[in-house]
Amino acid sequence: MHTGHSTLRKTAESNSIAPAMAKPQGDLKTLQTLITRTPNLRDGDEANMRRVLRNYFLNTFTTYESLFECLVNDQAFYTKPISLRHPLIFYYGHTATFFVNKLLLTRMINTRINQRFESMFAVGVDEMSWDDLNDGNYQWPKPAEVKAYRDQVRALVLNLIDNAPLQMPVDWNNPWWAIIMGIEHERIHLETSSVLIRQHKLELVKSSPHWQPLRESGRAPQNSLVKVAAGQVRLAKDKTSEHYGWDNEYGVHEADVNAFEAAKFLVSNQEYLQFVEAGGYLNSHNWEEEGKGWLAFTKAQHPTFWVKKTNGWYLRLMTEEVAMPWDWPVEVNYHEAKAFCNWKKSETGLSVRLPTEDEWYRIYDVADVKEVGAEKSNANLHLDYAASSSPVNKFAHGDFYDVVGNVWQWTETPIYPFDGFEVHSIYDDFTTPTFDERHNLIKGGSWISCGNETLRSSRYAFRRHFFQHAGFRYVVSGDIKPVPSSHYETDKLMSEYAEFHYGDEYFGVANFSKSLVDLAITTLIDKPKRKALDLGCASGRATFELAKHFDQATGIDFSARFITQGVQLANGETLRYTLADEGELVSYKSRSLADLGLAETTNKVEFSQGDACNLKSQFTGYDFILAANLIDRLYSPAKFLGAIHERLNIGGVLMLSSPYTWLTEHTPREEWIGAFKKDGESFTTLDGLQAHLGKHFRLIKGPQELPFVIRETKRKFQHTLSEVTVWERIN
Amino acid sequence: MHTGHSTLRKTAESNSIAPAMAKPQGDLKTLQTLITRTPNLRDGDEANMRRVLRNYFLNTFTTYESLFECLVNDQAFYTKPISLRHPLIFYYGHTATFFVNKLLLTRMINTRINQRFESMFAVGVDEMSWDDLNDGNYQWPKPAEVKAYRDQVRALVLNLIDNAPLQMPVDWNNPWWAIIMGIEHERIHLETSSVLIRQHKLELVKSSPHWQPLRESGRAPQNSLVKVAAGQVRLAKDKTSEHYGWDNEYGVHEADVNAFEAAKFLVSNQEYLQFVEAGGYLNSHNWEEEGKGWLAFTKAQHPTFWVKKTNGWYLRLMTEEVAMPWDWPVEVNYHEAKAFCNWKKSETGLSVRLPTEDEWYRIYDVADVKEVGAEKSNANLHLDYAASSSPVNKFAHGDFYDVVGNVWQWTETPIYPFDGFEVHSIYDDFTTPTFDERHNLIKGGSWISCGNETLRSSRYAFRRHFFQHAGFRYVVSGDIKPVPSSHYETDKLMSEYAEFHYGDEYFGVANFSKSLVDLAITTLIDKPKRKALDLGCASGRATFELAKHFDQATGIDFSARFITQGVQLANGETLRYTLADEGELVSYKSRSLADLGLAETTNKVEFSQGDACNLKSQFTGYDFILAANLIDRLYSPAKFLGAIHERLNIGGVLMLSSPYTWLTEHTPREEWIGAFKKDGESFTTLDGLQAHLGKHFRLIKGPQELPFVIRETKRKFQHTLSEVTVWERIN
Repeated sequence: MHTGHSTLRKTAESNSIAPAMAKPQGDLKTLQTLITRTPNLRDGDEANMRRVLRNYFLNTFTTYESLFECLVNDQAFYTKPISLRHPLIFYYGHTATFFVNKLLLTRMINTRINQRFESMFAVGVDEMSWDDLNDGNYQWPKPAEVKAYRDQVRALVLNLIDNAPLQMPVDWNNPWWAIIMGIEHERIHLETSSVLIRQHKLELVKSSPHWQPLRESGRAPQNSLVKVAAGQVRLAKDKTSEHYGWDNEYGVHEADVNAFEAAKFLVSNQEYLQFVEAGGYLNSHNWEEEGKGWLAFTKAQHPTFWVKKTNGWYLRLMTEEVAMPWDWPVEVNYHEAKAFCNWKKSETGLSVRLPTEDEWYRIYDVADVKEVGAEKSNANLHLDYAASSSPVNKFAHGDFYDVVGNVWQWTETPIYPFDGFEVHSIYDDFTTPTFDERHNLIKGGSWISCGNETLRSSRYAFRRHFFQHAGFRYVVSGDIKPVPSSHYETDKLMSEYAEFHYGDEYFGVANFSKSLVDLAITTLIDKPKRKALDLGCASGRATFELAKHFDQATGIDFSARFITQGVQLANGETLRYTLADEGELVSYKSRSLADLGLAETTNKVEFSQGDACNLKSQFTGYDFILAANLIDRLYSPAKFLGAIHERLNIGGVLMLSSPYTWLTEHTPREEWIGAFKKDGESFTTLDGLQAHLGKHFRLIKGPQELPFVIRETKRKFQHTLSEVTVWERIN
Repeated sequence: MHTGHSTLRKTAESNSIAPAMAKPQGDLKTLQTLITRTPNLRDGDEANMRRVLRNYFLNTFTTYESLFECLVNDQAFYTKPISLRHPLIFYYGHTATFFVNKLLLTRMINTRINQRFESMFAVGVDEMSWDDLNDGNYQWPKPAEVKAYRDQVRALVLNLIDNAPLQMPVDWNNPWWAIIMGIEHERIHLETSSVLIRQHKLELVKSSPHWQPLRESGRAPQNSLVKVAAGQVRLAKDKTSEHYGWDNEYGVHEADVNAFEAAKFLVSNQEYLQFVEAGGYLNSHNWEEEGKGWLAFTKAQHPTFWVKKTNGWYLRLMTEEVAMPWDWPVEVNYHEAKAFCNWKKSETGLSVRLPTEDEWYRIYDVADVKEVGAEKSNANLHLDYAASSSPVNKFAHGDFYDVVGNVWQWTETPIYPFDGFEVHSIYDDFTTPTFDERHNLIKGGSWISCGNETLRSSRYAFRRHFFQHAGFRYVVSGDIKPVPSSHYETDKLMSEYAEFHYGDEYFGVANFSKSLVDLAITTLIDKPKRKALDLGCASGRATFELAKHFDQATGIDFSARFITQGVQLANGETLRYTLADEGELVSYKSRSLADLGLAETTNKVEFSQGDACNLKSQFTGYDFILAANLIDRLYSPAKFLGAIHERLNIGGVLMLSSPYTWLTEHTPREEWIGAFKKDGESFTTLDGLQAHLGKHFRLIKGPQELPFVIRETKRKFQHTLSEVTVWERIN
């Protein structure tokens, strides 16, 4: 796990793409119709919705079960296809248990069906917890027992669909969201389990009439580049959308995409062979850093599903090996795709790389691709044709082929949240743990991608070393801007401050930074408002608030960590953080300046690390200086108070606020400016402020108490009164 | 200072008794009238009050200055009479500075007169801070400079008395209280400075016409015992009292005093000589433990003011030594007085001891003593006669002599606060630091006690080794009940909990323990209310609240320290604690059950130390069990939850409340019952409660959030929501 490429996160696994019931050669007796499409949730009345969901559920549940007909015996359920994932018995039970868990969370049900199974089948692979995968930890039940359990769940869900109260529409906030989520979840696993079956030893799998590959292959076409004009892409799925979506799809995203060229076809096995034969896997100079690590660890010499036999190359399909279909798309992970591009770049001198997510949307848009409809799709998608890839020149989309379908296409873009992203309460870790810049988006779906997976708006991401029915299309274009940072801050203090500055109000106490600045402004009515300084700015909220009123606002804090929050927001990024709820449970939160009406301030603020007791000389000439909750955290408040007038213009205003919580860990006792007995009498901090500031300032407002609240957990808060004093520099 | 008898506290010093202008031989030309009595503050109009205070102030200020006429030269101001107190120059300035400091605090003035002097003259001796007394720390000014400073203060105070706005009456809450406090404070120092002069080397003092002793002595009378019938004593000074009082005098005190016998006379030098001659100072077996320490340290062989010369015993007075006046009262500290009593007891077989404070009041009442009035008093008191003691058989009071006046009388009683005690905001450490059971009350006043000191209601206390113009009267009576504990709890956590349970409300949040019990009662309408258990009772408030509704309420906590707070209150005592305000500044607080309407519950509660995870078997058969903020502090909440039904009757009710703030320092991670992801889904503490309690309980109320606030400082609070669930035992 330290090499970072040995497996994928539990979540990536959970949202990995699942296989569905294929219709061999397009004409299958057992399943009369095409696999059901993801339903329009805004369509029709309640009775219709029950009917639609019943059908969608049954079709999915049954298709998923049929996948396991490809296993030769019970042992094939227990043997792991790859070492870092559970055996297939787990996935057999898992999609059923998922329904139970989510239905419990939306309170559509109140009790479990099988406590033991539901504990066993709940958690997938977490790469941080290798011991989850000790076989000894699991006494797997027999497949027949799991089938019986699945039957119970099937009956349960059907009963709910038929009889549970239903308030239309079935949307994000509806308890029924659990049902559609369970179905779409199972469709993801339909695909990922098909990959596991493909990774199983040949002797553990068998051919199934429902899962027959396409028997169609020929000479690979010569690839070429197609120009794509510059243009804008836009995604804006909202809560009124007619189709189910995972959390990461919602929100608004708009981007201007420069003109670029893109390969007409997905890279075929034939085209990729050149790279293999050029020694692509033998020396690592075409590989990115992370890819080099993966290559060294795995000692791969060719794509994972390629099999070298004495009589030439074969390709491993789900249940068989076939002579290499050279015109089918190559299936690789991101590292292999990227190494190919780098090799191609050095061969051709062109700026070859993988497309970004936005470039993929641009191709989709210019190729005028349509969503899968009721009829058989014009793409090797949704199991409409067979249980395998197809030639890269079979499905044309505009000037391109396979813009969607056949195999997923790796992009250069790590998954990140759109503006307005929020987690769903019953599945808050679907995407958030993948906002780590190590999970890249794959687009377009494969032959087994069904339901939500086929939508333009869907966004699935995997660790870059992960295998899927996935290949790539290359583009020739310029450099890529990195995606905005989308890490969730999990450090407790940093998260608490993010919430304190930008988050919600508690106990009816207004935002402290904003209240301070509003109060300051009332004392500054006739005063110049050119430069303001926010000393001890922490996460920076007051700096932005000051920038609403001043020409320029500077935030300075001793902590460079805090500064990053302000800097990030000033860059137009969204602040993301987890809030401790209870014990280890957290909730996910994000805020941007736009949410707070502060988007216009970004060009007027700057942040800097600095020491309030020893300010750099350039920080001077201010009309206003704020020191909020600062003085009782300084190592020498006297130093600060004794020199601060030098940074203010005459007539300028200094605002101090503090709860005077003196602690020797911040301020040595001998540096306290008050809050002790002096000459036998109480000498408060305010007395000390007056003594230190009296020479250059007069008190023009206060003292008055301004409250603030810092959230520690869902139920525990610091509720503090900060004493505010406002001082005018008189000489 | 470790022996506990080498000096006295600053406060003891500050409230030590001060000398005033004596009228030698009762007829003094320079001071025409008797020393002014402490004024009636409820008498007359505003103009009269200004006149009265002007007179009282001037008389005091001038009398005090005249005391220093007894010093031979400037050096006598700088040489310390005793090693552990300041030289007299300090006390010369101190009483003036005190006016300035207290006037600043009530905002009758806004600026200091002399920053340097007022720093130098502010703090007396604190026995914990020996370095305060390094001579090197002080560059004392010349007495003439101090006199000039005193003249400034005199003018300031007179100007205020004549011109400052005055809202009648002058009472505890009036800013003018600072003026009367300053005067009474100076009268205390009149007495204590007279003691220092008496302790000065003879060559540093000189006779003054204003400070002449009585030249009257004869044969000491034979002492005898006078019977005092049983009776009640009562003190009840309140804020409407007509005379100034120090904080410790206010409140209500009533006591039944058993019959006893008391010596007719104070113990004379003659009577005490028997003890000295019997070897009383040579072997320590008559001395109490603390007295033994003092004796060993000082190697005293006779009373401190006795001087042994070749021609016999002499007595040191203020400025001279005179042949021993054997009929004057002996002057000793508590240890010497107590040793005499113990010796007398062993000699006579009678239960000889010092009187308690209450016994002194009883003697005062049966002797029908009157307060000092406008006329010359019938006691050697208030400087009405001379600057020395007088024969013990000179002033008769009923069947006794010298019930008041002549010398102070040591009692057995350490000073403690009466019910209703509170500190005064401008002098919050006048008495509180002496509530340590090491400061014993002295009663009756001496020849130099003036003003408040002469009142029956006054209560002065000193360390037991301290010297004053003080002696004793012995009584024969039974054992003494110890006084109620009057320590101020200064431990931060203990104090915070005392305030949390019994103190004020903050942010409008009602008392948590009371709210919990009120909520519980609403679910118990038709249920039996015999026995209630408050598990994790901490300071015990909920136990008392339960006792309002149940026949019996038991409070159990793991912490014996917490239990003591409940036990103390159940014993009818007052809980006293300091609240952190800001840095080192604190405020003093006290609460009793009577303040909270809970006085009637004391006979229904009991407190016990115990472990909620391993309860002793006798704690069973309850109708109601409360576990407030407990489960997230247990080392094994599962153990507690799994066994608690055994302690409840069937149909009985368990109320849990907790913010679920799980911390591994209290509960090892593996013992948490929830607040983590379980099988991939959020498993809250409430889920855990349901899992653990489901077998024996049903949830009948909640979950609902109940807020509480814990005050950390004047401006910093924990504001928490506790989740309440109520469970009925069903089997």
